[in-house]
Amino acid sequence: MPRFRMTIEYDGSNYVGWQRQDNGPSVQGAVEKAILALTREVVLIRGAGRTDSGVHARGQVAHADLSRAWKPETLRNALNAYLGQAGEQVSIIETAEVPDDFDARFSALRRHYLYRIISRPSPLALEAKRAWWVSKRIDHEAMHVAAQTLVGYHDFTTFRSTHCQANSPWRTLDRLDVTRDGEVIEIRATAQSFLHNQIRSFAGTLKMVGDGRWTPDDVRVALEARDRKACGPVAPPDGLYFMQVDY
Amino acid sequence: MPRFRMTIEYDGSNYVGWQRQDNGPSVQGAVEKAILALTREVVLIRGAGRTDSGVHARGQVAHADLSRAWKPETLRNALNAYLGQAGEQVSIIETAEVPDDFDARFSALRRHYLYRIISRPSPLALEAKRAWWVSKRIDHEAMHVAAQTLVGYHDFTTFRSTHCQANSPWRTLDRLDVTRDGEVIEIRATAQSFLHNQIRSFAGTLKMVGDGRWTPDDVRVALEARDRKACGPVAPPDGLYFMQVDY
Repeated sequence: MPRFRMTIEYDGSNYVGWQRQDNGPSVQGAVEKAILALTREVVLIRGAGRTDSGVHARGQVAHADLSRAWKPETLRNALNAYLGQAGEQVSIIETAEVPDDFDARFSALRRHYLYRIISRPSPLALEAKRAWWVSKRIDHEAMHVAAQTLVGYHDFTTFRSTHCQANSPWRTLDRLDVTRDGEVIEIRATAQSFLHNQIRSFAGTLKMVGDGRWTPDDVRVALEARDRKACGPVAPPDGLYFMQVDY
Repeated sequence: MPRFRMTIEYDGSNYVGWQRQDNGPSVQGAVEKAILALTREVVLIRGAGRTDSGVHARGQVAHADLSRAWKPETLRNALNAYLGQAGEQVSIIETAEVPDDFDARFSALRRHYLYRIISRPSPLALEAKRAWWVSKRIDHEAMHVAAQTLVGYHDFTTFRSTHCQANSPWRTLDRLDVTRDGEVIEIRATAQSFLHNQIRSFAGTLKMVGDGRWTPDDVRVALEARDRKACGPVAPPDGLYFMQVDY
């Protein structure tokens, strides 16, 4: 059976998350339903990352085994037609036939995420659910300095959810950059893999530095505590985007 | 009574438009309700432009006469609190006390609009209702060339709605620039005032040039026809943003 890779964009606001669950509509379920409608096959797809409810994606990647050797554009357009009919906030950006040993999750070399903060006195209307609104002024340079203490190979127990199912809290964080363009502050994170809630834990902790309540050194101390209770408040999902997977 | 200027951002998707109407919720009505909740005064506000249903704003401007000399930030924050409680997609970006002869509509020197097109094969998930999705490739340079034939003092009968209430179809268009950044094409329009549906008529007509069905010269011919039937299809409201008013 030919294997297909799909690059997927979604607005996560109205989903319980990427993964199929009993408590509501998931992005995975939406794509699987579109495949069923198109192919009459019950297909399970696997994604590169399990984003939480409210988290968005510009470049989630999943793979699926289909019985027919679809022309990639035909597959993309047909799935998008079914997703549109179903009123889903999900779009298949790209499809490609891939070798049998390609696995969206296990073949991933690097995952790229973006966390967006909008810092301004007024609440968000156009960017509601698309960013974390912070009414205070934020020092993004202090946040960037603090972020560099997190880059590298560390025990990230402080920065993972108590529900995280990974065997080890050790990960190598390749990049954690904080930049600003006007009222928008962007945090860009890259690693081979992340722990559950790791980037939202970073964002919430770095924001404590940005508004002057923590020093960059407090972040180092929190990391070294290896204690979930040392983490700053977890940032809301609205600002998080799964951007890209490298294979 | 002190007069206040308000700069207003909104997501127009769920409103019948700026102006209060009998057939559903309006942005004007949302702001007037917030003023009523705060001041216990029934206040009519006047906006710089009457945006249609689905049209967004980053910098709509309105004025209101209130009985109290509010501190501007207090007024802004209090109105935003009431707008948030009411679940409105409206945010007051700035407030200022202005002289009695300031009129948001009649004092305006220039109005700036942005029209966003996203040109790519896949439908929009994250940008749904925030841009016009065009699945074909678009030649933005041909669009820009065509747009320049519209700049200047012209009879814009071709490019205004048959419901337009303005006395004259003559307007001076100061700027109509088409640029591209990746898959996003931006049309930026500036004039002292616009006719009803003028920018959406421009956008729909220029898109005909962008996808190769019209030449830039066809746009000149359409303008000179001074006939609504010569206009290209009117572009959807989703891509239009009222950006700024100069006084």
